[in-house]
Amino acid sequence: MPHISLPQHLPGITGLLEYRLDTALPIRELTQILLRGDSTLTQAERELIATVVSYGNGCTFCMTAHTAAADLLLGETTTTEQVKTNPEQAPVSDKMKALLEIARMVQKSGRNVTPQHIEQAKSLGASDREIHDTVLIAALFCLYNKYVDGLASVTPIDPGYYTTLADRIVNQGYLRPQQGFDHLKKQ
Amino acid sequence: MPHISLPQHLPGITGLLEYRLDTALPIRELTQILLRGDSTLTQAERELIATVVSYGNGCTFCMTAHTAAADLLLGETTTTEQVKTNPEQAPVSDKMKALLEIARMVQKSGRNVTPQHIEQAKSLGASDREIHDTVLIAALFCLYNKYVDGLASVTPIDPGYYTTLADRIVNQGYLRPQQGFDHLKKQ
Repeated sequence: MPHISLPQHLPGITGLLEYRLDTALPIRELTQILLRGDSTLTQAERELIATVVSYGNGCTFCMTAHTAAADLLLGETTTTEQVKTNPEQAPVSDKMKALLEIARMVQKSGRNVTPQHIEQAKSLGASDREIHDTVLIAALFCLYNKYVDGLASVTPIDPGYYTTLADRIVNQGYLRPQQGFDHLKKQ
Repeated sequence: MPHISLPQHLPGITGLLEYRLDTALPIRELTQILLRGDSTLTQAERELIATVVSYGNGCTFCMTAHTAAADLLLGETTTTEQVKTNPEQAPVSDKMKALLEIARMVQKSGRNVTPQHIEQAKSLGASDREIHDTVLIAALFCLYNKYVDGLASVTPIDPGYYTTLADRIVNQGYLRPQQGFDHLKKQ
């Protein structure tokens, strides 16, 4: 049961973003810019950052949702599985491996990111902007993970829920649908 | 030295927020709403949440800046010192002690917030909205701490820097000054 009264038909982050629309707007906008805006990182690569950070924080809702989003973008499920459990063998570029390692450090503490982590990423072709965005995406998903779990929002166990959510965030993005979510009450 | 090229005259978070203005805007807006918008928590109480979270994350820049902001709002320095090092004896309300304990849990992991923490806060008069905002402010400052330290932005050692910064965030808020910060280069 959530720690505060939330709309029962909206689990995980979705009910929290409806609970306070004024704070939800900049959170949604920041996510849309970072995960869907122009970038030399693909949308799938940015979803992988969200996935490994949520995995590190043990946030089942976010981890499952962004795994499903990355799977949908990639058309397979091996990559998300491996970046979580066997990152050295994951079928991503060496640059991406270095960036995901930086994201894992940020998840633990910003102070865990060393000059060696940065040199490694830069030597494999990572730009300042890619390093910046990796750190900020990792930091943003720490916010999400702590928000979702800190208020004990509901974590659906039906895999179909996450497939539907992934379809929405891949094909419509992170901004609030104009009609809101009240129509879901009728389902 | 920062991990990426940042404006040298803007230490800590300030250079990061100028590095990418499009992502900075929603971060600034979220902070302004949460820390300066309408709330049954005082601005000083909300700065104390930012302070204890930044202290827990060991982020010297944010911890010093928000300590200075809370000190300015409170007109004394005992409270910020005690909420960091001796929270049970801090001269804040019992409700605020319970909310600061929730913030400390969120700093470690959202999953550390238990029903007992919530019951304690509610029994001392905390509303759902106050609990929500405490969790979200704590999560936001984890974002800030990880952003600032994850990119190794510069931490000034001159206490006067933080006094000036506190004056700005207390008296002008968290939005970007219209003229930006380029004028600081001339100082």
